[in-house]
Parts: sequence; C-alpha cells; structure tokens
Amino acid sequence: MNGDAMSGRLTGAGHELIQRVYFEDTDYSGRVYHARYLQFMERGRSDYLRLLGVHHRELAELGLAFAVRRMTIDFLGPASIDELLAIRSRIVEATGARALLRQKVMRGEAPLVEAEVTIVLLSGRRPVRFTPVIREALEAGRRD
Amino acid sequence: MNGDAMSGRLTGAGHELIQRVYFEDTDYSGRVYHARYLQFMERGRSDYLRLLGVHHRELAELGLAFAVRRMTIDFLGPASIDELLAIRSRIVEATGARALLRQKVMRGEAPLVEAEVTIVLLSGRRPVRFTPVIREALEAGRRD
Amino acid sequence: MNGDAMSGRLTGAGHELIQRVYFEDTDYSGRVYHARYLQFMERGRSDYLRLLGVHHRELAELGLAFAVRRMTIDFLGPASIDELLAIRSRIVEATGARALLRQKVMRGEAPLVEAEVTIVLLSGRRPVRFTPVIREALEAGRRD
Amino acid sequence: MNGDAMSGRLTGAGHELIQRVYFEDTDYSGRVYHARYLQFMERGRSDYLRLLGVHHRELAELGLAFAVRRMTIDFLGPASIDELLAIRSRIVEATGARALLRQKVMRGEAPLVEAEVTIVLLSGRRPVRFTPVIREALEAGRRD
Repeated sequence: MNGDAMSGRLTGAGHELIQRVYFEDTDYSGRVYHARYLQFMERGRSDYLRLLGVHHRELAELGLAFAVRRMTIDFLGPASIDELLAIRSRIVEATGARALLRQKVMRGEAPLVEAEVTIVLLSGRRPVRFTPVIREALEAGRRD
Repeated sequence: MNGDAMSGRLTGAGHELIQRVYFEDTDYSGRVYHARYLQFMERGRSDYLRLLGVHHRELAELGLAFAVRRMTIDFLGPASIDELLAIRSRIVEATGARALLRQKVMRGEAPLVEAEVTIVLLSGRRPVRFTPVIREALEAGRRD
Repeated sequence: MNGDAMSGRLTGAGHELIQRVYFEDTDYSGRVYHARYLQFMERGRSDYLRLLGVHHRELAELGLAFAVRRMTIDFLGPASIDELLAIRSRIVEATGARALLRQKVMRGEAPLVEAEVTIVLLSGRRPVRFTPVIREALEAGRRD
Repeated sequence: MNGDAMSGRLTGAGHELIQRVYFEDTDYSGRVYHARYLQFMERGRSDYLRLLGVHHRELAELGLAFAVRRMTIDFLGPASIDELLAIRSRIVEATGARALLRQKVMRGEAPLVEAEVTIVLLSGRRPVRFTPVIREALEAGRRD
C-alpha cells in the first residue's frame, strides 16, 4: 500500500480519510471516548495537508509545528468497536496566520461528530505567519 | 492518601484538581497534545461529580454513563513536561437532562485552556433525564 | 476503500498492517511514545483476527473479550512523525485457552519493536476456553 | 497541594504513586486498557526520579530523554473505572548506561500488573552514559 493510499483522498470538496475503531478508542461505556474524535480529526487534517504538500516533519526541521487554537465540537452519535469511520475535512478560510476547517466524522451516512477547528502555526511558543508553501496549499484546498 | 485527597477539592466556586504533565501528554512539538486537555478536563468533571456524590461505577451498574454533547474550547497557551496544571470546573446550568460546565486549565495564574462543556446522561445510545441523585448533586454544585 | 483493505493483509507467514505515525503517537522527545507501540500491535492483532473471521463486536455480544496476559517487548529503535510503520503478526502457538503471538513493528527493513504476546479470552473477569470459531481461526493462522 | 505531594512518596523500598482510573483509561470490555498500565508505570518512574532529583525538563534542555529499552509485563487482574491504583517502583540495578526497575500496579493488596523495565538515556537517537546526577540518583534509589 503506498503512502498516498494511506493518506486518504482529495474529494473535490476537501479530504476524506477512513479509520477503524480499535480497542484503544473505546471506553467502559462501550462507545468511542469523546477525546479520541479529536485524534481522528487531527489524523484527517494531517493527511489532508500531506496531500496538499505540507509535511509535519519538514516543518519540524524549521522549528515549526501546527497547533489548534480553537474548536467547537458537536457529538451527535456514538461509534463502537470495529466500525469504520470517515473523517471529512474542508478548509473554509485561510488568512496569513490562521486557517479555519470544518470537519465531520461519519459512519456511513450518519454524522457522529461535527467540528469547526482553527489552526495556527507556532515557532516555539509564538504564533507566526504561514510559510508560502503552507499558504499555497491552504489556498489550493480552499478552492477545491 | 485517601480517596478525597485524590479527587481535588470543592472551592466554593466549583472544583479544582491538580494534575501533572507526563510523557504521555506531550507530542513531538514539545507541548501538551491538544486532545489531552479534554482528558484533563474529564478527570476534573469526574472528580467534581465524585465529591458531589455521583460515581461512574454506580451509574454503570444501572446501565448509565455520562457523555459529552458539545464543547467549545480555546487553547490559549502551551504546557510542557513536568508542569503542574490546575483544572477548574464550575457548573453553570443544569436542566432535567443536560448540564453546562465552564472549565479552565491553569498553570499558576496563566489560563492555558478555557472550555464550555455540555454533558448528558445516556442509557445505551439514548439520552435520558438525570436521576434524582445527579440532579441534586448538580444543583448543589451550581449553588456552590 | 473496503473493509478488507482497511484490515491489512494475510502474508502467508501471518499478517501485516501499515499504520501512519500521527501527532498523538509522539512525545516531547520527538519519538513515538513507547506505550503507543502496544496500541499499534493491538490494531495488528485485531485486524489479523478479523481477516481470520473473528470480530470483537460479535464476541462482545456474547459477553466475551480478548485480553493480554503477558508481553515481552524489545524497543530497538525510534520512529517519528509522518512515518509509515508495518506491524507484522504471527500466531506461534494456540492451546484451548491461550494463544502466543510474535509481533514486529518495522520501518522499511528496520525492526523498531519486537514482542511476544500471550492473549486469553475473558468472560467478565474470568478466563474461558476459546470458542470453536476462535480456535479454528487461530489454527488457520498458525498453519499459515 | 505542593509538588512533592503530587509526586508520590519514597517508601524505603522504592516509590509509591496513587493514581485514579478515569474514563480515558478504560475500554469497551469495561476494564483498564492494557497499554494504559504502561502509562501508569511511566508516571511512577517519572515521579520516582523526580523525588530522587532527576527532572525530565532539565534533561530536555541538555537534549537528553529517557527511553524504555525492554519490558516484561504480566497482566494479572483487571481494574475498573473510579478505582485507585498504587504504582510501586523499585530500582533493581543501575550500570553506567542502563537501569533495571521492578514495578507493580496494585489495587489494595491485589497485584494487577507486574513488570520489569529496562531504561536507557538517549541523546537524539543514540544511547549515552548516564550523567553523574542520574547515576547518583539511581544509586540512592537502589540502596533505598
């Protein structure tokens, strides 16, 4: 399986990544633990950016890393062990120093989680303007 | 160390729990991973409810478990390995079937995370009205 | 992407699952956090059993769940953000009530983790004999 | 609560840290997820070293971090939501570049997990000899 197949796919309206629910994602209530959806959504954002040409590792070599600045999350329904979830991500807005994404976690046609996520770029503890590569990637994603 | 000392303390304006940042909480950027703050806040809510007389385990025996329905989260500043964080929780509103809490994660006097969290009670996959014990506990917390 | 493609593949000598290293898997040292490899290996075991016809969900409906009884783990080298890891699993031995697997986490041809894992089946808190479906699946895997 | 109270205590035969089982630690089987015990044990080791005068943060400023090289783990019994666990750690042996610890996770007098853990110190990806501060701390712990 090549790297691209592992990174989900660009859908024309953003990005979709399929992920499995494993033991580690569930809690004693039998459902997926609420904070795990943030990890699923972060995987979606990482792979979306990867397909747009932005790699965490290259950023790290420049001392840069993305950080989440704000999230609004609606938990609409539960997921369970063994299920396949689709994480859908769309870039809504990108300015010089922050980007807003809308993300959904779906099981089939049922939306389980809906979120708005604002991300920024940090150099150490300080937010900085996006690099040209990131700005172009986000622009390409937004037009998508 | 008794159970109460392990459960933080009622402050008159809600609840405060002190937690350490360990290896597991950090990511390669050197900061605490954003989704971990939801775990810190969940620990705060669990211990707050515990001190108000509500125990997850007793609920589980009735087939009941709390679930998060909605969160708004501002990530204001980073935390690092070895630091001690204070998780402050306050019950803002409680109706028959949902409660709204305000939570903060502080390092000393610096707010790192601020959140509004709506919780509900689930029986299987279905939201149900709070039991009398929970309603009284939440009321006691809210008046606090 | 269908369920099978999401579950890795039977290799003739066991099972292989490819997984990406995300933010959540790393710690402030810049490497993958040691306990995360247990999660990667659990994903591998789950998908291996899935392809052999054993599903956690169906077991849960019978009140059954697998549990790890013993692990020996060698951490041989570090992995980093964005890397693709191959989790290789092989059933070495299966008796009526426990199975021994050998697992490796590889980055390309470099072994990062090697483990021996003993699993049992629990009904509540009590170990029980494998069901016929599990026994046949494990036997099929072992002959593989 | 001061930093020391948050770091468990030296017992004369090593170190003991009390930790609560929260939602995040459990899985759909109703028990604590096996890999979480490695996190509990890592918290114990971190706090043990902290009380012996070794701080991850100061090491990080020197480009150093501890890593686990080998673990043998027996999972003897299950733990559940809300329970208090005692993590006991003892330094068995410390040479110039590696240390061997024995760790137990107890619920009351019942041992739930027993482990042997070999740790090393890394500078980047390379194991290095312990610094004098670490060597003295480990020696003090071992004589304890």
